[in-house]
Amino acid sequence: MERIEEIIKRIKPVDERLMQETQKKLDNLTKPIGSLGRLEEFAKRIVGITGKNNPSLKEKVIFTFAADHGVAEEGVSAYPAEVTAQMVYNFLSGGAGINVLARHVGARLVVVDMGVKEKLKTQNSKLKIKKINYGTRNMAKGPAMTKKEAIESILAGAEVFAEEFKKDGVDIAGIGDMGIGNTTAASSILAAITKAKVKDVTGRGTGIDDEQLRNKVEVIKRALRVNRPDPTDPIDVLAKVGGYEIGGLAGVVLLAAANKVPVVIDGFISTASALIATQLAPLVRDYLFASHKSVEIGHDIALREIGQRPMFDLKMRLGEGTGAALAINIIEAGVKILNQMASFKEAGVSEKI
Amino acid sequence: MERIEEIIKRIKPVDERLMQETQKKLDNLTKPIGSLGRLEEFAKRIVGITGKNNPSLKEKVIFTFAADHGVAEEGVSAYPAEVTAQMVYNFLSGGAGINVLARHVGARLVVVDMGVKEKLKTQNSKLKIKKINYGTRNMAKGPAMTKKEAIESILAGAEVFAEEFKKDGVDIAGIGDMGIGNTTAASSILAAITKAKVKDVTGRGTGIDDEQLRNKVEVIKRALRVNRPDPTDPIDVLAKVGGYEIGGLAGVVLLAAANKVPVVIDGFISTASALIATQLAPLVRDYLFASHKSVEIGHDIALREIGQRPMFDLKMRLGEGTGAALAINIIEAGVKILNQMASFKEAGVSEKI
Repeated sequence: MERIEEIIKRIKPVDERLMQETQKKLDNLTKPIGSLGRLEEFAKRIVGITGKNNPSLKEKVIFTFAADHGVAEEGVSAYPAEVTAQMVYNFLSGGAGINVLARHVGARLVVVDMGVKEKLKTQNSKLKIKKINYGTRNMAKGPAMTKKEAIESILAGAEVFAEEFKKDGVDIAGIGDMGIGNTTAASSILAAITKAKVKDVTGRGTGIDDEQLRNKVEVIKRALRVNRPDPTDPIDVLAKVGGYEIGGLAGVVLLAAANKVPVVIDGFISTASALIATQLAPLVRDYLFASHKSVEIGHDIALREIGQRPMFDLKMRLGEGTGAALAINIIEAGVKILNQMASFKEAGVSEKI
Repeated sequence: MERIEEIIKRIKPVDERLMQETQKKLDNLTKPIGSLGRLEEFAKRIVGITGKNNPSLKEKVIFTFAADHGVAEEGVSAYPAEVTAQMVYNFLSGGAGINVLARHVGARLVVVDMGVKEKLKTQNSKLKIKKINYGTRNMAKGPAMTKKEAIESILAGAEVFAEEFKKDGVDIAGIGDMGIGNTTAASSILAAITKAKVKDVTGRGTGIDDEQLRNKVEVIKRALRVNRPDPTDPIDVLAKVGGYEIGGLAGVVLLAAANKVPVVIDGFISTASALIATQLAPLVRDYLFASHKSVEIGHDIALREIGQRPMFDLKMRLGEGTGAALAINIIEAGVKILNQMASFKEAGVSEKI
């Protein structure tokens, strides 16, 4: 835990003064004041986070973390657990949704095995193995993982970020997930921390039917009853009802913020990771960008809890980082507005009457 | 008018059968069914519009049309009328918002003088001169243009599209506007056609204050009273309370649809153009994509009138095609999902239990 504390201590408030200066600069560009709306907000926030006047988002990285969930044996997903591993291979061969969208926006994809049930073939150098264990245990029967594993998962995620940051640089990070059963973990985390009703934060995940949804709600209620996670202790919540990929992504968020790197949240699972991170370090909020509003019903509550407003609602619910990829592109558009637009003076355009 | 009728006759329904086939293909890709939400809808619609199984949106073109408005002399804008010409020069030198965003999404920008008040220097080959007149007349005192000019503006827009289509190709078109005073024209068109109350479709444009807004509402009411545009005759509406750039963009929409090219609407003004086009040719609706929900209050009503739902709301209100540029990028993401993702079979991923 001391190593996590050390990371948290390094997270500083964003530069408010520089953000105010940036707003003045934006107001001098050849457009009615404020007329580029949230694009201007994004540019300003990137400046405040990075501390750079003319930030560039050249190195865009999507971190897609995969792990299995013991609770999958309770029939909470529409897909069999082996799909987690199969999808990791799909990520590595470039055929998944996140591959297509990462390429589309010019982002690198970093795929990490945080705890897939099977031993994955590692000859493919694109896969990072940070396996904490071969899937979590069934949270409906006891803690999903030990406290030690929860801490290890966060540190492993931080380590992945550190490796990428040192090797090729990271100007902006998107976080995404893959793990059959992980909406059950994310809903449990959200219910545990916010004390929202389980049925208000439990959705259909990959596409379960009404009966399966009723079962999923019961499973989550049981997991919370059996484990009694402490809402004031995010590590306890993560250990009892979380997942390795969720802990890992929380680690990415923490170390990114410590290095003044903005983080773009994807959907429901990655928002649960960000929630763990903000519970550990409230300053992290100012480093986060919400991308889309997911179809998953608890997502609104989760985003509100971390003080975020989504950019778009395209009725997506795939995860993997797909929404984050599209959002990174929009944030980059905002940054380019700041860096590339001409001022009224430069362009010889008359100002407001 | 016969030449417009000829274009309209060439517009055919989109290919519903091919769209259904495409949905089946999308359902076989390695993701839960429907989990990429509207990205799938966009891909499917592009297939239906183009009639191509594997469409590509390589040639992305933003058409930004500029013109002046006689009604500007009524004090309806926060900026002086000379800004229209100044902004055209800004477009040509690459410093405006639309330049930055068009570059960001890899789109060509076509800037057209449809009726700017002053004679623009034409040595810059990036500017197309299709001037119908040196600004419209003041609609608060009489018709903004003659019926002949209204028809000419539509045909000139169609001609611009035809030139680009033949020269370098157009796989998807975005439409944008520049014209001090043109929200007054767009609100008037909307009120005339939908019979909505003037105050419900009149916003602050470039940023006028409460008193200026009250004046703008009165000016629009006066224009409608003085001119009595026939709501069933879009050419009459365009002539009496429209603008040259609005007519021109309606022409782009019509000829694009006739050539099976999808059109992405930007904000309030370009939606008014699309409304004129759909009134002339109802089949055009299926060729349109709404990009963002503008801050301008009438935009919702306008989008509903042409059967469109916006993709995102980033509190933008700049025009020029800026929202369309971002939307083109999102539509292209959907098309790449269709073309590049692996199927369950190809990737060896298990299907739903």
